[in-house]
Amino acid sequence: MDFWEVLRARRSSRRFKDLPVEEEKISMILEAGNLAPSPVNRQPWLFIVIRNRQVKERIRDLAARTRQEWAEASGWNWLRKYDVEYLVEVPVMICVAGDPARGGADRFIPGQGESYAHACAAAVENMLLAAHALGLSGVWFTLFAKEELASILGLEPQYDPIALVCLGYSDDPTQQPGKRDYREKVRYLP
Amino acid sequence: MDFWEVLRARRSSRRFKDLPVEEEKISMILEAGNLAPSPVNRQPWLFIVIRNRQVKERIRDLAARTRQEWAEASGWNWLRKYDVEYLVEVPVMICVAGDPARGGADRFIPGQGESYAHACAAAVENMLLAAHALGLSGVWFTLFAKEELASILGLEPQYDPIALVCLGYSDDPTQQPGKRDYREKVRYLP
Repeated sequence: MDFWEVLRARRSSRRFKDLPVEEEKISMILEAGNLAPSPVNRQPWLFIVIRNRQVKERIRDLAARTRQEWAEASGWNWLRKYDVEYLVEVPVMICVAGDPARGGADRFIPGQGESYAHACAAAVENMLLAAHALGLSGVWFTLFAKEELASILGLEPQYDPIALVCLGYSDDPTQQPGKRDYREKVRYLP
Repeated sequence: MDFWEVLRARRSSRRFKDLPVEEEKISMILEAGNLAPSPVNRQPWLFIVIRNRQVKERIRDLAARTRQEWAEASGWNWLRKYDVEYLVEVPVMICVAGDPARGGADRFIPGQGESYAHACAAAVENMLLAAHALGLSGVWFTLFAKEELASILGLEPQYDPIALVCLGYSDDPTQQPGKRDYREKVRYLP
């Protein structure tokens, strides 16, 4: 599939067909994540593939609690009604977790040290693009209290769960939301 | 160009031919960055396009100072010899700066609030992939004290400079460093 078509047509989906995702596609998406750049090529990511319904239910419950807490903290009332049931219906979730000890030299600098997480975010983007190239769709999900997600997934303390990448065959009728024109966000330095 | 070829062949370059980058290609790379996903589609990025030699020299000087500070703090002695002259030779740098106020609801939660930066990292990855698709190459540069870079670029206080994306026609003979096998970094949850 053409690179620009993938980039332009990628979109988030929150409703999925009741179809499993083929093993080979999951492998290709993991490989895509692993191809992201990282500081000093230290590849600070770990991928956890989640398909077990009970685990998905626990994540859905966590998301529902987190939603209430964050709605309270932010004052964003629409968040209280944000539907998280798709976390159970989605066939696959891949947690991308980062290891801060595999970051760049920035990690020794007070107030910096996020380069491992930025590399993980690049891996997430590669995975979402790869999913689209494979006819899948997904969403970059982050509505979770990190410590509780780490506990559900049995992550060792050094790992920081950056995102849950939800993946399946889309059955989402909503439109791609579109973006502001990129030219509104560019400055050309004289 | 084929999506998978772009993903697999993308690589970092730190030596560039003495050739300008066409305006149209810069625009396409900016558009690619703007196509990244973001929390609540708030698109928290600002792109600053840098081609002025004097500005590049100031950034090179800042990188050289930062290199010494970070080498000291990290104990990574190899960093002292990391060559930053390519920051002057590279034809274009694009700073991707994030606006924390345009993040997700996580920004109201103590100890979280990095979703705006993760969206910016996804934009950086889109830009590096797009550059490769256009025959260019570059590097995701972060060896800078953030406050000083913000000052050189005249950024308002709300912006957080996430990365400098260096872009040009590669003249870098070093090999792609390669990755560990992705299967070493995957856990399948039972």
